[in-house]
Amino acid sequence: MRIVALAGGIGGARFLRGLKEIVSPADEITVIGNTGDDIHLFGLKVCPDLDTVMYTLGGGIHEEQGWGRADETWSIKNEMKAYGVGPEWFGLGDRDFATHIVRTQMLGAGYPLSAVTEALCDRWQPGVRLLPMSDDRVETHVRITDEQGPRVVHFQEYWVRLHAAVAAEAIVPVGADTAKPAPGVLEALAAADVILFPPSNPVVSIGTVLAVPGIREAVRAASAPVVGLSPIIGGAPVRGMADKVLAAVGVEATADAVALHYGARAAEGLIDGWLVDTADAGSVAAVEAAGISCRAVPLLMTDTGATAAMAREALTLAESVRR
Amino acid sequence: MRIVALAGGIGGARFLRGLKEIVSPADEITVIGNTGDDIHLFGLKVCPDLDTVMYTLGGGIHEEQGWGRADETWSIKNEMKAYGVGPEWFGLGDRDFATHIVRTQMLGAGYPLSAVTEALCDRWQPGVRLLPMSDDRVETHVRITDEQGPRVVHFQEYWVRLHAAVAAEAIVPVGADTAKPAPGVLEALAAADVILFPPSNPVVSIGTVLAVPGIREAVRAASAPVVGLSPIIGGAPVRGMADKVLAAVGVEATADAVALHYGARAAEGLIDGWLVDTADAGSVAAVEAAGISCRAVPLLMTDTGATAAMAREALTLAESVRR
Repeated sequence: MRIVALAGGIGGARFLRGLKEIVSPADEITVIGNTGDDIHLFGLKVCPDLDTVMYTLGGGIHEEQGWGRADETWSIKNEMKAYGVGPEWFGLGDRDFATHIVRTQMLGAGYPLSAVTEALCDRWQPGVRLLPMSDDRVETHVRITDEQGPRVVHFQEYWVRLHAAVAAEAIVPVGADTAKPAPGVLEALAAADVILFPPSNPVVSIGTVLAVPGIREAVRAASAPVVGLSPIIGGAPVRGMADKVLAAVGVEATADAVALHYGARAAEGLIDGWLVDTADAGSVAAVEAAGISCRAVPLLMTDTGATAAMAREALTLAESVRR
Repeated sequence: MRIVALAGGIGGARFLRGLKEIVSPADEITVIGNTGDDIHLFGLKVCPDLDTVMYTLGGGIHEEQGWGRADETWSIKNEMKAYGVGPEWFGLGDRDFATHIVRTQMLGAGYPLSAVTEALCDRWQPGVRLLPMSDDRVETHVRITDEQGPRVVHFQEYWVRLHAAVAAEAIVPVGADTAKPAPGVLEALAAADVILFPPSNPVVSIGTVLAVPGIREAVRAASAPVVGLSPIIGGAPVRGMADKVLAAVGVEATADAVALHYGARAAEGLIDGWLVDTADAGSVAAVEAAGISCRAVPLLMTDTGATAAMAREALTLAESVRR
């Protein structure tokens, strides 16, 4: 079975780890990773979401933190502070730095991000084919108004520095309009037996992947069933600040509102099936009324076992909606 | 008193630490640092000699090693190895990396190396004005013949990777012929009260500084006395492999041969005075016969006290030859 998943960072990566537990060795998982949260720091190209997937599936992730490397050291960060060189708010550990150095060198030598990602994965052996959504530069920016007045900040500044404490007025994936899907992305979607939307951020993670011209269309055109898992449980994001960016696109932070935001494939939308948490069982009817098959199952990724069970539910739901 | 010293790495840096001990607060020390051993690694501009001077005088040096940072961590090096990305033979610690990242960013932003060096020194406060010999790129290469046949390697590859184990057939400071002295270099030499050649490598350190058009001429034209200290004691370099590169320029590895290699200012050469170690007292006559004032004093930089005594001898000799 060929499974294709769109993924952001922590939520997507953890879900994929569960998914890997339940697939058979003959199954192939292709991950189309969000690169809209990429940032250039210290002259280096940093791809937080791709790296979170790679480290999580490759056994190098800092488990408690969810991002960055296990057994990390922070010499460079301390030195940068001593030199008075910022930004201080973005945490890049020494081990993590090495990944960005290798990536930046390869990009500088002319390799596209997809080839670089493949080379990095040669080491990490994540057990999935990890594709960036695009080899072209896309950077998500957020329009806010704070004490400095109305302004646009990089997504990472909004998320990491400002902790999404001010309202996001608009989310702009700069460069997405002219970006092309990375090699293999459209082919993977066309050849997929199942397409999954993990419980990643529907706006700045999966939404950004879908903003690359051709990807949304390929999902809609795919013969495979498309099943998503709600990142919202009981009216709040399980992790992160998805509610803040959902508000920017006029979507309520509820499990059913996110499903309707993606929309039913039968009605010009994207998904055939949707999983909500048991806490949101009351919203199943509304989702189904929109033409999306919906089940309420436990969606808390408390451990790999619980996450594997979620993945199994997603695949089961996919089979039930297969045309 | 305005003291100008030409300097390479470890030997020069340690001498300068001794010199700092004996000058008065009103004295100014300007160091013209060798940049011929600069190397580009991992997309970063690395200036080993400048950094060794900066770290040594600024209190950040790894004392036993003589280069690199104290309390260093090696996460990046380990990661690079895990990624299979070389070179493995050049040791860049994490703390050291930060310096190169800051430098490379500033160079990329358009600042010349001299301005970058000044900015880095803002943190380290080395107590001297540290100038690179040039803002232009100069890289020392070494012609060798080994099992791969005749070839040219970067100086660092010859020194660090090959341990100077094969004969150096020629030393080529690539780019020196068109390099310009960095801002302040010629002015410092012209205004100097004393010019010192520390016991740095006469070929690949001081020789490279002198290879920048204008610097040799400025030393010769300076009104200040020029005094050097022999890096060779008892027919061998105190540290490093200076004998290998001296052979490449046809100079014997003896204290007097190096003095004659610099030559007497009175005879189109560069130096007025020369200090040899007491072990080389027998060579004083030969140096003096060439028109260079020479004294035999202890030249082993065993500690800061011994090094300060050497610096005092150098300044005393300078006074005795002042015209």
